[in-house]
Amino acid sequence: MSTDPSKYTFNHTMIRVKDPKASLHFYTDILGMKFLTKSDFPQSKFTLYFLAYVDSVPESEEEKKKLAFSIPGVLELTHNWGTEDQADFAYSNGNGEVGRGFGHIAIVVDNIEKACERFESLGVKFIKKLSDGSMKTIAFIADPDNYWVEVITNPKYAGAAPV
Amino acid sequence: MSTDPSKYTFNHTMIRVKDPKASLHFYTDILGMKFLTKSDFPQSKFTLYFLAYVDSVPESEEEKKKLAFSIPGVLELTHNWGTEDQADFAYSNGNGEVGRGFGHIAIVVDNIEKACERFESLGVKFIKKLSDGSMKTIAFIADPDNYWVEVITNPKYAGAAPV
Repeated sequence: MSTDPSKYTFNHTMIRVKDPKASLHFYTDILGMKFLTKSDFPQSKFTLYFLAYVDSVPESEEEKKKLAFSIPGVLELTHNWGTEDQADFAYSNGNGEVGRGFGHIAIVVDNIEKACERFESLGVKFIKKLSDGSMKTIAFIADPDNYWVEVITNPKYAGAAPV
Repeated sequence: MSTDPSKYTFNHTMIRVKDPKASLHFYTDILGMKFLTKSDFPQSKFTLYFLAYVDSVPESEEEKKKLAFSIPGVLELTHNWGTEDQADFAYSNGNGEVGRGFGHIAIVVDNIEKACERFESLGVKFIKKLSDGSMKTIAFIADPDNYWVEVITNPKYAGAAPV
């Protein structure tokens, strides 16, 4: 048996989160991802949560895990237990002077104006509103850990007629 | 027109890279991603590179950009011009004591033993070899900026008969 890099898949991106309740609410209820599965590691006191945009989540745990480790576009949230109770605890979002490196994740949406209106109505923090700066077709919102989430229109919806 | 979060897609993950030549070599020649397109911003002196695992890259620039902003699993590399010439310049990979937050990206492969053997033969730096630690089915390699890339078997290939 050999290996064929053309069969590889960019499966997931992992970010550490302070409070999984807040992050799961943000990524599922606000951004519309589905929660797929989680793995607890009691000895090392952390839990991994896997989310993705899928039409439906399989019923069996085996099928959930198969899905979580085969498709592209999975988000892995790592929660080190107890960080949510530490008032001063905060992760770096990668965009400050210190710790600069990772920039953002991006979601592409059906209608960016309506999506941003909805985010505003839900109290989401904006790093860049559509009206800010010179690029009027891109917004940046912040997740509960202040990681940046870019919001852009998916080109496949860009030409859709208004309904 | 309204917005429907179930139509959203987790499109890309952006990391800043010091030397795009090194990073493009790593993600295409070694990891097998395809280079889709790039955008130069001469006024602000940066370039964005978009890569993904796709079967083929469209010929027209318009179709390349459509693809780059619609599918899941795209990697965006941001190059701020000139960093490659600064000997002391380095981005944070998100896993140190300072700047901790982002963890890694992960690729799922057809055959992890063969994939890791190939990475070793190509001189890739390992953060965790398959034989290290208690989890013998996971490896971590490092990209040219020392960002961690997790390597796991895609479950759809896990049961494949040896050939």
